Amino acid sequence: MAVASFAGMDLTSLVRPLAAAANAAVRLLSRQARLRLRASARGVVVSGSDRDLAVRFECAATTHLDGEVLVPAAPFAETMRMLDVDRVRLVVEGNRLAIRTDGARFALPLLDRELHHDPAPPPRLSEVDSSLLTTAVRTVAGTAAKDDPLPLFTGVRVQSVGDELRLTASDRYRMAVARLPLRALRQPIDVLVPADLLTEAIRHGAGVLGLHAGAGRFALSWDGGAVTTAVLDAGFLSEDAIPSDSVDTEVELGADELAAAVRRVGVYSADRRVLTLEVGDTQVRIASARQDTGEAEETLKANVCGGRTSPSFQSRYLLDALTPFSGDRVRLAIQPGLRACVLTPTTEREVRLTYYLMPMLPR
Amino acid sequence: MAVASFAGMDLTSLVRPLAAAANAAVRLLSRQARLRLRASARGVVVSGSDRDLAVRFECAATTHLDGEVLVPAAPFAETMRMLDVDRVRLVVEGNRLAIRTDGARFALPLLDRELHHDPAPPPRLSEVDSSLLTTAVRTVAGTAAKDDPLPLFTGVRVQSVGDELRLTASDRYRMAVARLPLRALRQPIDVLVPADLLTEAIRHGAGVLGLHAGAGRFALSWDGGAVTTAVLDAGFLSEDAIPSDSVDTEVELGADELAAAVRRVGVYSADRRVLTLEVGDTQVRIASARQDTGEAEETLKANVCGGRTSPSFQSRYLLDALTPFSGDRVRLAIQPGLRACVLTPTTEREVRLTYYLMPMLPR
Repeated sequence: MAVASFAGMDLTSLVRPLAAAANAAVRLLSRQARLRLRASARGVVVSGSDRDLAVRFECAATTHLDGEVLVPAAPFAETMRMLDVDRVRLVVEGNRLAIRTDGARFALPLLDRELHHDPAPPPRLSEVDSSLLTTAVRTVAGTAAKDDPLPLFTGVRVQSVGDELRLTASDRYRMAVARLPLRALRQPIDVLVPADLLTEAIRHGAGVLGLHAGAGRFALSWDGGAVTTAVLDAGFLSEDAIPSDSVDTEVELGADELAAAVRRVGVYSADRRVLTLEVGDTQVRIASARQDTGEAEETLKANVCGGRTSPSFQSRYLLDALTPFSGDRVRLAIQPGLRACVLTPTTEREVRLTYYLMPMLPR
Repeated sequence: MAVASFAGMDLTSLVRPLAAAANAAVRLLSRQARLRLRASARGVVVSGSDRDLAVRFECAATTHLDGEVLVPAAPFAETMRMLDVDRVRLVVEGNRLAIRTDGARFALPLLDRELHHDPAPPPRLSEVDSSLLTTAVRTVAGTAAKDDPLPLFTGVRVQSVGDELRLTASDRYRMAVARLPLRALRQPIDVLVPADLLTEAIRHGAGVLGLHAGAGRFALSWDGGAVTTAVLDAGFLSEDAIPSDSVDTEVELGADELAAAVRRVGVYSADRRVLTLEVGDTQVRIASARQDTGEAEETLKANVCGGRTSPSFQSRYLLDALTPFSGDRVRLAIQPGLRACVLTPTTEREVRLTYYLMPMLPR
């Protein structure tokens, strides 16, 4: 380890942005991750990486002495998060990075800077509005499996289709597809990205987000930061695989009213918690019974078109499917047999959502 | 099972008070508990009991037909909690209690009323202000062990001493004692009560609470309700058992400032998380170090009297001890060796708190 690794660095910074950057890095990277802090006249850049991921945040700072250090990420992030002052001084003292406030000094060991790798993001291919992407990711990423032996079901497919961005995720029991406008497209994008990464990335940056892809990697960038990941090499999800040409019954009703009824009637369902939506002429009836607790039924007004096909769902999955439509009415396009029910909003939105929910065999 | 068990009952009631009563009963009793609903011109009484506990809540209701039913507690409570309407009708229909709202019907099986036991509370011996008891119980009950082979450490001693009520609890590593005024005392009280029961009981009732004891039972009552429990037959906790005559050092400082510093410096402590309060002339210094994350120190201004005895504590226990003094300054009376540190507030309060915290061997 060369002595030159422990050159100086000295800066004063606001605590809050540094804390946000360091804690985002710790959430995304492993517990053993290291953070590089590089101070210059332009402020301080916090960056870190592990095998598949790299993060980079630029923070404002007053730099007294340019320099660069590598420190353990977790205690740095935890210390910054717990400080209850506005400003902090970060200064190299011997083989330590000292975090100084009035009356307190926290000192982290300096690590060998050779341990840090900082791959540049792949080329910027397109742009998307941050708030629209946030809406889309919130719905779609939650549909991916948290943990599945097949990586296909833990990812979100991020795909340009014409001048639209399409996000698709599925855990095999349901699939969510969101379509939103792209701002510019220099080259087509089609990658499978870990769902967790997208969920974390949308917490940062506002305004316009850059979409980067190439050479097996994907990045989201914003003014002052970026998150880069290896893409999942696991095939692709597609809604084309879900037959939806046998719709014979359409029902429109309030998403929140249906969800509340499902929760209440679900108390009276047996362990499988399967509920049937009994489609009538102007209403939907949900009923359930179990021997020890009795029985329950609720009837909700609904607009009904076509037939009277009455699908059964596991109540937990039906509730998940209704969540993104909260505050609005939802249209259920129902197919007979064990074919997916297709949920769409009844009003136009900038982020267009299609949710496919697999029915269950009724009891 | 006699046919007479299934006599009628019919009432209309606000949902919220019934939901609060039923859910409190479910929290206190076992999952398999049953609730009795008794409707009369004066409203509806919700009561339930298991081996050691009995609860009773009076709720306003418009009774259409006097009567009494016994139903499973858990689904009744869950249904009431999840209703999003203001009013509900409870009516016996055949061998069911129907819970009816517009468009919905939930039906619970009627159980044999012979299964219900409703012991009356023991005699009312004294009274206490509800808000003062709440303050005292919040602090003291949290000091009891959640789970301990010795029931002594899971209870709170509820004791009249002169015209004061004294609550004492300990998990052997710390002990909290709260003293508060009694409103009237007809007969001395000295019982060991499960800490959980007190924590639940203070959620109900306002104004004056009745204290009841006798024949191995204890009850708290309020206008419209009561909770009765078997007392723990496990001996008694007493602060007299803790030597406190060797105090040689007294320190006064802000409780929240000390807690915040302990949390931050604790990040740098090794697995045992033992921190030493190094007492100086006008300050307290907290320091910690571990090989992989570096070292930390904070210095806090303090009023110091007497010697410079510097105790060590497990940081988690020190944080717990400081919580009840939040927003105020705390006085630490420190004894040398492994004798308890005594924490008291520096300002007079109606609920007088003494907190004994056992020190650790320094590292």
